[in-house]
Amino acid sequence: MEANLASYIQEERSKLNQLLSRYLNHLSTPEILGQSTKYSIEAGGKRLRPILMKLTCEGLNGDPERVYPAAMALEMIHTYSLIHDDLPAMDNDTYRRGMLTNHKKFDEATAILAGDGLLTNSFQLITETDYYTDSEKVFIIKKLAEASGLEGMVAGQVMDMQAEKELTTVEQLENIHRLKTGKLLTFSVVTGAFLANAKQEILEMMEQFGTTIGLIFQIQDDILDVIGDQEIMGKASGSDEGNQKSTYPSLLGLEGAIEHKNRYVMQAKHLLHEMKLDQSLLEQLVDYLSNRDQ
Amino acid sequence: MEANLASYIQEERSKLNQLLSRYLNHLSTPEILGQSTKYSIEAGGKRLRPILMKLTCEGLNGDPERVYPAAMALEMIHTYSLIHDDLPAMDNDTYRRGMLTNHKKFDEATAILAGDGLLTNSFQLITETDYYTDSEKVFIIKKLAEASGLEGMVAGQVMDMQAEKELTTVEQLENIHRLKTGKLLTFSVVTGAFLANAKQEILEMMEQFGTTIGLIFQIQDDILDVIGDQEIMGKASGSDEGNQKSTYPSLLGLEGAIEHKNRYVMQAKHLLHEMKLDQSLLEQLVDYLSNRDQ
Repeated sequence: MEANLASYIQEERSKLNQLLSRYLNHLSTPEILGQSTKYSIEAGGKRLRPILMKLTCEGLNGDPERVYPAAMALEMIHTYSLIHDDLPAMDNDTYRRGMLTNHKKFDEATAILAGDGLLTNSFQLITETDYYTDSEKVFIIKKLAEASGLEGMVAGQVMDMQAEKELTTVEQLENIHRLKTGKLLTFSVVTGAFLANAKQEILEMMEQFGTTIGLIFQIQDDILDVIGDQEIMGKASGSDEGNQKSTYPSLLGLEGAIEHKNRYVMQAKHLLHEMKLDQSLLEQLVDYLSNRDQ
Repeated sequence: MEANLASYIQEERSKLNQLLSRYLNHLSTPEILGQSTKYSIEAGGKRLRPILMKLTCEGLNGDPERVYPAAMALEMIHTYSLIHDDLPAMDNDTYRRGMLTNHKKFDEATAILAGDGLLTNSFQLITETDYYTDSEKVFIIKKLAEASGLEGMVAGQVMDMQAEKELTTVEQLENIHRLKTGKLLTFSVVTGAFLANAKQEILEMMEQFGTTIGLIFQIQDDILDVIGDQEIMGKASGSDEGNQKSTYPSLLGLEGAIEHKNRYVMQAKHLLHEMKLDQSLLEQLVDYLSNRDQ
């Protein structure tokens, strides 16, 4: 990663971690629920989505400070989805980012409720901010719910579980990823552009850009599962193969998966060029997503 | 139940069931997720909360048609909470309203995701309606999230689970009920009043009224668990005793619980009198809640 992107990411992560911890600390909620939500929020995610939102807003000459409430809500929804995905009835994971998953650290009931609570409060947080007008709040809540609900992320998770039982094609795989991870990534960049008062045309290109980088992210995830370093990633590599899960490398071979990813990288950069956002930190971020080792 | 209230309730239930089924049928979501959400939404709940909202709006001379989007969202959140409460990690229930619980009919993963989806889409639905201005949408989403999130219903559910492990006092019991069931009931009447453009003073009295009828509802629930007819209720009576759960009858005796409930009934009726809503169907509903046999 280039030095200026690396320091940008580090700074944003720490700012966002602070804001999220402060928000959770001020809630009046049972102690165990406070501990459980904070445990997962503070577990040190990449904060990729909030960073994407801010870079987009900034790149389009918006006031980047305005992204924070939406970025916090987004990260709370992302965190809830990880807590629920890790549950025994779903992926049944013991570790995430090198730490015990929420239901292992606490218990299943607490993990389910911590997820429910983070999801609910993410919408509440947007209604409470004075950074947005009512009309902006309604737009953001609508987009965020569309991205995460029965036609978005939740649908993708159901399709992902069903696909584990049967062979899939690359097309089916990408349909799942577009919903399961793509929708929230798309929300990041569309909302960043919206808060910069971008034109409709740009919002539409951002939809495409979000989908494309979502696929890049996912292909690299699958590649890392084959060739990644367990120490760096904080989770076991080779787990997809153990699960007999369809992945890009299992469907296209490792070389094929890398070529497929590179086509999306070209596409993403082309879109940035069209939006006059090449030469920006966003372009560096595309390379980082494509080449990351964790 | 008096005849005019009975026919009102029946009519409203069927109207709301129709609206909810139509909403879910129009979503583009994986088949299993559509089936699972519809299964629980169509499982024939009492629709008490939507009916309370409409009666309140009507009683205060508002346009009662305006309650529907908020009432649908509320019922979706209530349904999600039942699906998650029934899960093996929580109350581990096999039947609800005489039907298999969602995770028994489908599976645990699907039940968790159906709940997550209903919760998320309840907020989305409010953003999409043309019944409300943006400022009304923000008010309703804020109140609904406050009632259901980390400081509301979810907090109450965590406290309820903790209380199962230790003896509680009536005060502790009522703290739990105020959050777990009281908050959503309060949302019903406050939103009904808000949509009738009621004054702040009325909204505040409605907060109290909602809390009070929530406690009446809960005391009667506990009483029915002791003396109720299993056939009518569609679930096993005596289950609280089996769970060694603190209830009003276990803490106050059966007679004591009934007296306690009657004090709240007086209080609720006094509040209705203050708001010039005595002689209304709302007053009949208070008696119905207090005397219901299921």
